[in-house]
Amino acid sequence: MSEYADTVVRVRYAETDQMGMVYYGNYYIYAEVGRVEYMRQHGIDYRQMEIDDDCFIVVAESKCRYRRSARFDDPLRIRTRVTELRKRTVRFAFEIFHHETGELLANGETVHVVCDRNGRPKALPDKYRGFFDVAPASDGTSKE
Amino acid sequence: MSEYADTVVRVRYAETDQMGMVYYGNYYIYAEVGRVEYMRQHGIDYRQMEIDDDCFIVVAESKCRYRRSARFDDPLRIRTRVTELRKRTVRFAFEIFHHETGELLANGETVHVVCDRNGRPKALPDKYRGFFDVAPASDGTSKE
Amino acid sequence: MSEYADTVVRVRYAETDQMGMVYYGNYYIYAEVGRVEYMRQHGIDYRQMEIDDDCFIVVAESKCRYRRSARFDDPLRIRTRVTELRKRTVRFAFEIFHHETGELLANGETVHVVCDRNGRPKALPDKYRGFFDVAPASDGTSKE
Amino acid sequence: MSEYADTVVRVRYAETDQMGMVYYGNYYIYAEVGRVEYMRQHGIDYRQMEIDDDCFIVVAESKCRYRRSARFDDPLRIRTRVTELRKRTVRFAFEIFHHETGELLANGETVHVVCDRNGRPKALPDKYRGFFDVAPASDGTSKE
Repeated sequence: MSEYADTVVRVRYAETDQMGMVYYGNYYIYAEVGRVEYMRQHGIDYRQMEIDDDCFIVVAESKCRYRRSARFDDPLRIRTRVTELRKRTVRFAFEIFHHETGELLANGETVHVVCDRNGRPKALPDKYRGFFDVAPASDGTSKE
Repeated sequence: MSEYADTVVRVRYAETDQMGMVYYGNYYIYAEVGRVEYMRQHGIDYRQMEIDDDCFIVVAESKCRYRRSARFDDPLRIRTRVTELRKRTVRFAFEIFHHETGELLANGETVHVVCDRNGRPKALPDKYRGFFDVAPASDGTSKE
Repeated sequence: MSEYADTVVRVRYAETDQMGMVYYGNYYIYAEVGRVEYMRQHGIDYRQMEIDDDCFIVVAESKCRYRRSARFDDPLRIRTRVTELRKRTVRFAFEIFHHETGELLANGETVHVVCDRNGRPKALPDKYRGFFDVAPASDGTSKE
Repeated sequence: MSEYADTVVRVRYAETDQMGMVYYGNYYIYAEVGRVEYMRQHGIDYRQMEIDDDCFIVVAESKCRYRRSARFDDPLRIRTRVTELRKRTVRFAFEIFHHETGELLANGETVHVVCDRNGRPKALPDKYRGFFDVAPASDGTSKE
């Protein structure tokens, strides 16, 4: 089980804006795709976690640094880590690379609170705890 | 009570694509804004309709013709009509104009089935029926 | 060279709405992904077509029928055909299946006008013409 | 000329996700609406700035804290300030309130670099400089 999970997506036309690059808010969609894939690769089916365990991973904070612009049809490699796991919170870091050139295009992190369907915080069920593999942050983004 | 409802929105940067105009799928978001506003102006709070009456207006068909491109920051006037009301279905027509020049930029329609939260079709509750004001279609779009 | 192109995507959380299914306008994003992939599988790099040939495939009409709802994390198979090719217009048909069950979830079509970057219609360059493989429509959606 | 600009939007159905609240990435769209409105209220037409002055306000960083969930049809008041203005960079802070209850739902900031259409940093033209009204940050979000 790797400490990170990689997944590759292509930039869609819908995700660009009139500046000819990916709209800044859409990197957070890539980050979400990365988190779901991280969980899948670590044995967690997030869809079932919501249904079976009444367990929602609600976003409490998000941030991103944009380094180079992603463009239509670029293949992006989304690399996702868990950098902190507490009783009720999980912190994910993401890096988005151009899949062919390897350039880092953007990176950031998201902090999540485990909640029930009514938005009340709850502890992450023990059965999931072991699936997360906490990695030290790869750069300064999670230390602020 | 007018047979149509108008509402004005401004094109957001996020809604454009690298062609420098509104992404074609986003006109359907404007159509949704128009439908919700039509209902509000006719006395229906769609949010409460979902909660209080377990009544969802699920889309079964949609179509749109794009005539002139809408661009960032353009003010758009969305005009919405109900062109057909049956026991379990509602048909809306929408026209999107440039609010200042009056030019027709796009028009189309959506057909909806009234469903409960599990997606089972049901009759539109009588209490809502009177609020809809069926107008003849203003052009050929609903006759195809 | 097949008369259709298939590509598989997973439904993203961002694409769902509070009804718990894919927002109706987002099926048009899938249709766009399908068109780009159709072109790629038929030897056309759409990104380069815009840059090298000042050739944009602008949407003039779109429509979709929603048959069963797509849900978060569902794998979708998008099947795309060209059903008509004229001097300046191209008609694509798309079908969206649940990739595992094979159920048809939605289908529709889009009509496009070939334009230069200023939105003026132009003929599709001959060099691209041979790459399109016109297939008869698989159902009634393109005959209305 | 106020040190902040307020604008009100309603949450669209398209902006919700299956958790029944606004998708976390969409708050950045509200932040963009706020920035454009800030500029308009301070005498800058951002659309013309791109066209007339080859001046793009590219996002370099973004962050957001989510405090309470925004829901479909909620009226949101977006409050935008400029908290820092340098030769080539601008920092905006945004707060999103429930327009009726006044509750703070989310807040964050975005950092921008002024660029030409090719993405090269350039100085903000003097003619725009006077229009920005730098306000001290209203909370800790811009001090990290």
